[in-house]
Amino acid sequence: MRPVYVAGVGSTTFGKHLDRNLRSLGGEAVAKALVDAGIDRREIEAGYCGNALGAMLQEETGVGQHVLWEVGMGGLPIVNVENACASGSTALHLGWQGVASGQYDAVVVFGVDKAVMPKGTPLKVGAAEMEVRLGDLFPGYFAMVAQKHMEAYGTTLEQQAKVSVKNHDNGCLNPYAEFKKPLTVEEVLASPMIADPITLFSCCPNSDGAAAAILCSEAVVRRLGKPRVRVAGSVLATGLYDNQRDFSHWEIEEKAVAKAYEQAGVGPGDLSLVEVHDAFSICEIVHYEGLGLCARGEGGRLIDEGATAIGGRIPVNASGGLLAKGHPIGASGLGQIAELTWQLRGEATGRQVEGARVALAQMMGGSKEADARACNIHILIAE
Amino acid sequence: MRPVYVAGVGSTTFGKHLDRNLRSLGGEAVAKALVDAGIDRREIEAGYCGNALGAMLQEETGVGQHVLWEVGMGGLPIVNVENACASGSTALHLGWQGVASGQYDAVVVFGVDKAVMPKGTPLKVGAAEMEVRLGDLFPGYFAMVAQKHMEAYGTTLEQQAKVSVKNHDNGCLNPYAEFKKPLTVEEVLASPMIADPITLFSCCPNSDGAAAAILCSEAVVRRLGKPRVRVAGSVLATGLYDNQRDFSHWEIEEKAVAKAYEQAGVGPGDLSLVEVHDAFSICEIVHYEGLGLCARGEGGRLIDEGATAIGGRIPVNASGGLLAKGHPIGASGLGQIAELTWQLRGEATGRQVEGARVALAQMMGGSKEADARACNIHILIAE
Repeated sequence: MRPVYVAGVGSTTFGKHLDRNLRSLGGEAVAKALVDAGIDRREIEAGYCGNALGAMLQEETGVGQHVLWEVGMGGLPIVNVENACASGSTALHLGWQGVASGQYDAVVVFGVDKAVMPKGTPLKVGAAEMEVRLGDLFPGYFAMVAQKHMEAYGTTLEQQAKVSVKNHDNGCLNPYAEFKKPLTVEEVLASPMIADPITLFSCCPNSDGAAAAILCSEAVVRRLGKPRVRVAGSVLATGLYDNQRDFSHWEIEEKAVAKAYEQAGVGPGDLSLVEVHDAFSICEIVHYEGLGLCARGEGGRLIDEGATAIGGRIPVNASGGLLAKGHPIGASGLGQIAELTWQLRGEATGRQVEGARVALAQMMGGSKEADARACNIHILIAE
Repeated sequence: MRPVYVAGVGSTTFGKHLDRNLRSLGGEAVAKALVDAGIDRREIEAGYCGNALGAMLQEETGVGQHVLWEVGMGGLPIVNVENACASGSTALHLGWQGVASGQYDAVVVFGVDKAVMPKGTPLKVGAAEMEVRLGDLFPGYFAMVAQKHMEAYGTTLEQQAKVSVKNHDNGCLNPYAEFKKPLTVEEVLASPMIADPITLFSCCPNSDGAAAAILCSEAVVRRLGKPRVRVAGSVLATGLYDNQRDFSHWEIEEKAVAKAYEQAGVGPGDLSLVEVHDAFSICEIVHYEGLGLCARGEGGRLIDEGATAIGGRIPVNASGGLLAKGHPIGASGLGQIAELTWQLRGEATGRQVEGARVALAQMMGGSKEADARACNIHILIAE
């Protein structure tokens, strides 16, 4: 396996784009990534598209092909990938494999979704018969995770609320974010109860948006003369179906990150910043522990200490995360990569983590039956 | 890139399985492939699932994970792939890349769909806004292909009907086929008109079903002691958006097959048998030409001569093809691979092509806007 670099990234703003379709959003992200990389679109040898909801919500299949035609790209192999919230990060993993294995010198990976739905419509992602039709939806599942974490470690409602407050503060600094309004702990706690103990402002929104990255070999990134951001670790893992599992952590995440640290030759102490899948505020606390940013059970203390704020020891979700930046399902994984690339290049104006050199992105998605349907860890290093 | 082998295959029967879900069908195919290969499921390092309609028709996402949990497999990377009719063959292509690049020694690739729909429901695969909502559905598109081919080359209605007759004859010999009733040319021509000149018996059905293959390295196939069927060529191509294109052939197919022949070091004259995407009878005639089995415009003559029947010079769709074997959209590409593997191992009882040594599978899928959204060519060689 040879080194793979992020030559360029692009993103739409995340939020409500009721007047735009998947092609338009995806096309904007891809066009921006091509321009950012300074690469001719005809050099791109393969395309990988992450999309989770196109078929279900827009009756649209073949989204990747339609997006690339929108920017005048055809003839190259194109693969559409679905791994729920991890669709975009799975597309990234496949593109990384394509370049790392020497098959391609330059590929485009992108994610796009239109997830804004009429108020009250549940997000039907998962095993239809086993979960969705039984009412086992995301807020209920993550409420059980929160209850278990509170019982096992004494994690408090205030600590969970502080995650929301931090990420909404960060969202105010990010021009790509959906929500740009600060919140207080009191407001989070007083917002409508969705599934005890999860309140409305502890939930991420379902958003519209797209993000893209150009991946390439060392020779290509040298020629392009771009700052060198290397994909030093790329892991895709799937949860085990295990009805005796402990809801207070995700074993699959712990295994995946151990593998990614080994690939990249770094450990949690080397990280400058992290983006995680904070679909609900409790998730971020569990991910602190799963990624080794603190010991198991210490996640609540980490947010109390302010360690994960911009300027803290290990900033998490400087972008605002899913909670404030927004969550266009299949696009979110690549939204993280756009953010981390800007951070590693020192271009994240207003929310820049000073001296950022090693960054980690974590995404998880899918069924609640197992630990997770898919978990991706990516580690980026500025060279 | 190192050699990749098909260690085992499995398939459900294709047809109406109204009482079974995606997991059940997919699980049967995967379990059969594991048994056929004689490999322990714990040796499988990655899974690639082709599924086109799960989200749209069953509200099911993450199909690959659910199928593998059904047979007790978790923890490995799993990717869900959508490329319309070419979903299964795209999963195969990704799995081939995984083993060929040395990343994995053994993977499972599978396809599954439940495509049987209430009578009169159109198959909504394509660009929703540009095609489906405008009524540009498959029978209408392929009727234009037929009209153009008839005008350009004098291809007759009888020649098209003969494709249906041949494939239904073959279906009678295949225990996996949906239709096992012979048809006459007169019956095909007299069946209800769907889109002039395409009649009902010139159309494939939308079926339920699943098929799977275990791919592995040379070391693994040697240890398993299985007959050695090598994936000598694997190509995924995407059509160009080109509103001046000629409807009488698919340029993308011609480009893809040239690349596959080069990879495999064979030409059309070396082929023992072929499986093609005969969604409508005209397709098979155009594919004869596209794959180089005859010159452009000579496809009608090839069926007249009986060259593509079992026992002919170059049997095409000995399985019955999509027309008679059935078309469970995302599974069909791997259904072809199961059939060709059995043929190359001399196990296709009743429909065996004697001395089969080199086989080609062709699938195409997706939008009608371009030549095709996705086109796969695979070449298998018995060693």
